[in-house]
Amino acid sequence: MAYIPPDTATRTRMIEQVRFNDAGLITAVAQQHDTGEVLMLAWMNADALEETLRTGRVCYFSRSRGTLWRKGETSGQVQTLMDARLDCDRDAVLVLVDQKGVACHTGRRSCFFNAMRPQGLVEISQPLIGADELYKHKHD
Amino acid sequence: MAYIPPDTATRTRMIEQVRFNDAGLITAVAQQHDTGEVLMLAWMNADALEETLRTGRVCYFSRSRGTLWRKGETSGQVQTLMDARLDCDRDAVLVLVDQKGVACHTGRRSCFFNAMRPQGLVEISQPLIGADELYKHKHD
Repeated sequence: MAYIPPDTATRTRMIEQVRFNDAGLITAVAQQHDTGEVLMLAWMNADALEETLRTGRVCYFSRSRGTLWRKGETSGQVQTLMDARLDCDRDAVLVLVDQKGVACHTGRRSCFFNAMRPQGLVEISQPLIGADELYKHKHD
Repeated sequence: MAYIPPDTATRTRMIEQVRFNDAGLITAVAQQHDTGEVLMLAWMNADALEETLRTGRVCYFSRSRGTLWRKGETSGQVQTLMDARLDCDRDAVLVLVDQKGVACHTGRRSCFFNAMRPQGLVEISQPLIGADELYKHKHD
């Protein structure tokens, strides 16, 4: 089931119903649509959410850089949107995506790889691709 | 596979590695361990995370009340911990849980029920239990 972008008026109306925090952000959780794997957690401002809904490509807001962060722009590991769901408080969004390659900057499929176990933190997945390979586009 | 609590020293060591924000909090995402359903997003401070890891019952920090929020304490809808996983930045935690009943205060299984669709926000699930029933313990 491919994502169908809402028209401009509908996007605007929905985004007006979102409760952004004092910094103008909401939390976004990305989940692989078919396997259910939780891939990453990041942030969106109104522009990032608007672009995501309009283009069907997930766009976050980078708090460190203070700019829109089009996921995969540098690494090629894009997230194609399948569905976006606001929570009951409308201050968090779950994006169901089709993740190309890996979501994590460490080269792992998911960012949530540090399991809190009786022996301490355990890395339960290994990188599928090296950081050099992942970000080579950056240096092109 | 039942959850095995780490001992006190291990819990302390792991929690020291968590990067809490300026308000002393990390974002927590709860996912039903077997179905993969993302249930809710909330916050934990160090005490909430410590209690969660120690007891195997998920405890959040309520930003509105400024206190620990033992999930299900009022409603009976407890979350039994199966695994806890920090992300790459160690500022977010994914808790895999066995959710008793419903996670959402609206009586829905998941808080993420407002789908952003071409026709606008669409509620894709209905309450399984009424708020009166859910919080009747509160008034006992």
